[in-house]
Amino acid sequence: MDHDAIKRPRPDRPIHDLHARRWSPYAFDDRPVAEDDLRSLFEAARWTASSYNEQPWAYIVATKADPEAFAKMLACLVEANQAWAGAAPVLTIGCVRKTFRKDGKPNAAAEHDLGAASFALTLEAVSRGLYVHQMIGILPDKVRETFGVPDDVAPLTALAIGHLGDPSTLPENLRTRDVTPKPRRPLAEFVFGDAWGHASPLIG
Amino acid sequence: MDHDAIKRPRPDRPIHDLHARRWSPYAFDDRPVAEDDLRSLFEAARWTASSYNEQPWAYIVATKADPEAFAKMLACLVEANQAWAGAAPVLTIGCVRKTFRKDGKPNAAAEHDLGAASFALTLEAVSRGLYVHQMIGILPDKVRETFGVPDDVAPLTALAIGHLGDPSTLPENLRTRDVTPKPRRPLAEFVFGDAWGHASPLIG
Repeated sequence: MDHDAIKRPRPDRPIHDLHARRWSPYAFDDRPVAEDDLRSLFEAARWTASSYNEQPWAYIVATKADPEAFAKMLACLVEANQAWAGAAPVLTIGCVRKTFRKDGKPNAAAEHDLGAASFALTLEAVSRGLYVHQMIGILPDKVRETFGVPDDVAPLTALAIGHLGDPSTLPENLRTRDVTPKPRRPLAEFVFGDAWGHASPLIG
Repeated sequence: MDHDAIKRPRPDRPIHDLHARRWSPYAFDDRPVAEDDLRSLFEAARWTASSYNEQPWAYIVATKADPEAFAKMLACLVEANQAWAGAAPVLTIGCVRKTFRKDGKPNAAAEHDLGAASFALTLEAVSRGLYVHQMIGILPDKVRETFGVPDDVAPLTALAIGHLGDPSTLPENLRTRDVTPKPRRPLAEFVFGDAWGHASPLIG
């Protein structure tokens, strides 16, 4: 059994193939991502739903085709993430504009909508045989300084994008993560009916 | 041209059919959603990626099969949303646990990860011929009181779920929204390269 088969979701109910093939690898292959694919990934993010159609997301992107730009971005991750994410051919930092453009008021959905956009990007990647691993472990102040991110924007995540790699290339402490299933809590623990903590009868 | 065709995304680059068919209608048909479909929607949310696999999302769900439960949930939306969302056969409130279960520390990715889960749910809906319209306009304190939501959990969104309806059934001030395309900002305005605001050369 290859490790991709081990790591794929094991749903209790039928879900679309894009969901059923998605997982977040640590090991990436060094094969580059085609620029056409990359453009479609961001295009998918572009068409995500957002509160008041604000589209509060923005991405800063670097590929290994420009080693200097890639190194600058890699240095914006926490060390534990640098240890594996540097193998991916593409790195992206996800940012959110915290206020609405039209009136400067706080956007309570900003992070939520980045999450949606990045997940749209991720499923578009799956449809193209690519994998995405998102991280919250970044150095926001370093991102801000390196790329001149304005005050009303918050760097929040990084995304490693590429083809699936061989877990044996990983540092030992990470190797088992790419060959061990990652379970999920059952529906009854997060889909509620008449009160918090009471499983909805709809989920059976 | 039916209004579904008008409202669908008009991408500049190829994107997967699930993205290209998704939009957020105001008009819903009163046909119920099959329980099997509903379970698969939450199953798709279940397998979303989350920071430290915390799965900080939770949903409270009500359908018109239980009119009393449905009315209780509808009353948790702001009035402007009650005006149209009450036509949908299913309502769901999306909540986030703000702290990690294992140590009680703040989870900076909580809202982000709910956004991802709800978008996974939404694309699963698209794959089943269903539509989802998400709202930030809810009454969080009323949700908290009505359903006994604990302090470390924040009600954040509502989702109307169902089959596409006829815009002519909408109140007049909403009717045009379901027949007017909703544009998006171009990639050059949110995919950056060497510095914030500089379009990445990768997006062409």
